[in-house]
Amino acid sequence: MNLTNFKDEIDPLIEAYIQNKINAIPDDIDFAFLKKQFDYIKVFIKDGKRIRPYVTYITYLSFGGKKNKEIINNLVFIEIFHYFCLIHDDIMDNSAKRHGIKTVNSKCGVSEAILLGDYLFSWAWEIILSTKLNAGSKKNVIKIFTEMIDDVFLGQTIDIQSTHKKTVSNNLIFKKTLHKTAGYTFTKPMLIGLVLANNYSKENIKFCESLGKNLGFAFQIQDDLLDITSDFNGNKISLKDVSEGNHTVFSNYVFEKGSAEQKNILRNNFGIENIDNIKVRKVFYDSGAINYGQELMKEYFNNAKAIASSYKYFTNLIDLISSRKS
Amino acid sequence: MNLTNFKDEIDPLIEAYIQNKINAIPDDIDFAFLKKQFDYIKVFIKDGKRIRPYVTYITYLSFGGKKNKEIINNLVFIEIFHYFCLIHDDIMDNSAKRHGIKTVNSKCGVSEAILLGDYLFSWAWEIILSTKLNAGSKKNVIKIFTEMIDDVFLGQTIDIQSTHKKTVSNNLIFKKTLHKTAGYTFTKPMLIGLVLANNYSKENIKFCESLGKNLGFAFQIQDDLLDITSDFNGNKISLKDVSEGNHTVFSNYVFEKGSAEQKNILRNNFGIENIDNIKVRKVFYDSGAINYGQELMKEYFNNAKAIASSYKYFTNLIDLISSRKS
Repeated sequence: MNLTNFKDEIDPLIEAYIQNKINAIPDDIDFAFLKKQFDYIKVFIKDGKRIRPYVTYITYLSFGGKKNKEIINNLVFIEIFHYFCLIHDDIMDNSAKRHGIKTVNSKCGVSEAILLGDYLFSWAWEIILSTKLNAGSKKNVIKIFTEMIDDVFLGQTIDIQSTHKKTVSNNLIFKKTLHKTAGYTFTKPMLIGLVLANNYSKENIKFCESLGKNLGFAFQIQDDLLDITSDFNGNKISLKDVSEGNHTVFSNYVFEKGSAEQKNILRNNFGIENIDNIKVRKVFYDSGAINYGQELMKEYFNNAKAIASSYKYFTNLIDLISSRKS
Repeated sequence: MNLTNFKDEIDPLIEAYIQNKINAIPDDIDFAFLKKQFDYIKVFIKDGKRIRPYVTYITYLSFGGKKNKEIINNLVFIEIFHYFCLIHDDIMDNSAKRHGIKTVNSKCGVSEAILLGDYLFSWAWEIILSTKLNAGSKKNVIKIFTEMIDDVFLGQTIDIQSTHKKTVSNNLIFKKTLHKTAGYTFTKPMLIGLVLANNYSKENIKFCESLGKNLGFAFQIQDDLLDITSDFNGNKISLKDVSEGNHTVFSNYVFEKGSAEQKNILRNNFGIENIDNIKVRKVFYDSGAINYGQELMKEYFNNAKAIASSYKYFTNLIDLISSRKS
């Protein structure tokens, strides 16, 4: 099952869960707006790639889990939790759009978005607690889930703090990626897959940590790279990281190794709304930041492929990710 | 054990839990600010009355639970959850102070407060899942906890929506109080007490629902009344509800039964920062709103006392609450 097929399987489960929540709202004119807001959550969730639950699923398959669609029911909480993170993240970043559609804060209001995020976080727990697993597995899934929460919260905390700063260390960017991308997006979902496959051994945990770390770093650098290099909606350049003041390996490279003029251009456009897209993008190319980041990314992707070489689901996923254009 | 003694018992447990979280933060200069933020959570939590876990505790005692301080460990999650609610509520209300000290959003920043609230919500789950209860009781506590979450979220949703409106129906204020105060503050904590006492019977559930509803309505009206009538910090008048645009039975009384001039004064001061305290307070008295609210509150307190007449812990608590001055 590839990522697209997987999305086709899990999306109806996600939608049905939210629809149940809508149906459970008291049928009362005063709660009509809550139904509308939950409806928007369905719209907001619709286009996601489902990478995290898919990573869990292929780990499950790779470590002896039976091809059994029932197991996908146990993965819905991962995506619901992820959307809780995105909703609150969009408020913190004051983002108006995500993947071309309105963020929840921009559609429903900031207070509403805080509360809607809280709802999803609560739902994630509710789902995890109602999964049909034996007591030991459930305990392990919950343990990994709390570690996953710690990872994303710690990464997010660093994120919030570093946007206040003019410069940050490479080490801080490393730590943010370690928690928020490697830990949260890859390693922890993989570990849940091991538990579901009844194969949560020390050796396998080590494999997941090593693969998750390399894949996480590659994925994050790629994400930051695409934010600089890709055009979307016709000719619009993104450069969201620069305008939001997010420090990346690319901005750090310019601030460290760029010429005085290049540093100045990036500095003057960092964390402001209307940046000079053409000029800033040129700085990233001319300073050598793009080249440096591309090499680093390739190295991590190659490491990941080497580690995962005997697991076809993973090598396929790495090929898919490494060739993505958005 | 009265409320003050109870606070002396539970507070060290709450503090120790947060201190453990502080100790678990990686010892790393980059995470120093997170330690500071968690430290502020300890300060922010310090002065609370602990009404909700106390309500659980006296229900437990009233329905056959043994006088056993160990059980208090199982109540920490209720207060941690409550502070998650307060932290997010303060952001939504854009409040700078609570009980005389800085709110988390005002001390640490809005993004930080969203995330710190999320941390506490996550901790509440973690604590509830690690409580030493038999599987059946734990399942029931979790079920009631999710209903408690639904209550406070639904109340909060109404709250957010109604502050956008010029007028709301009495029915809407009724529903908000039913969920946010009766359900969340009294009935659901009581129900958890029944489970802990192994006395979660239909008859007892009915008792809790009936007592919780009356006590909740009395408590909410009293809260709104104190916001109008009490002076704090010397001569400053609060009237926070008016300046934040929160609809209460008092504002609704004025908007419905006040003279044209009284309606105008309240309307012009509703939801603005610098209200004319003296004039607005006079409107509440002169229109008869205060008198009306006081009678309604007395009625609910009397109902509550009648329902709880044979349970000394409850009659003592009702006496304590009904005589509070802040």
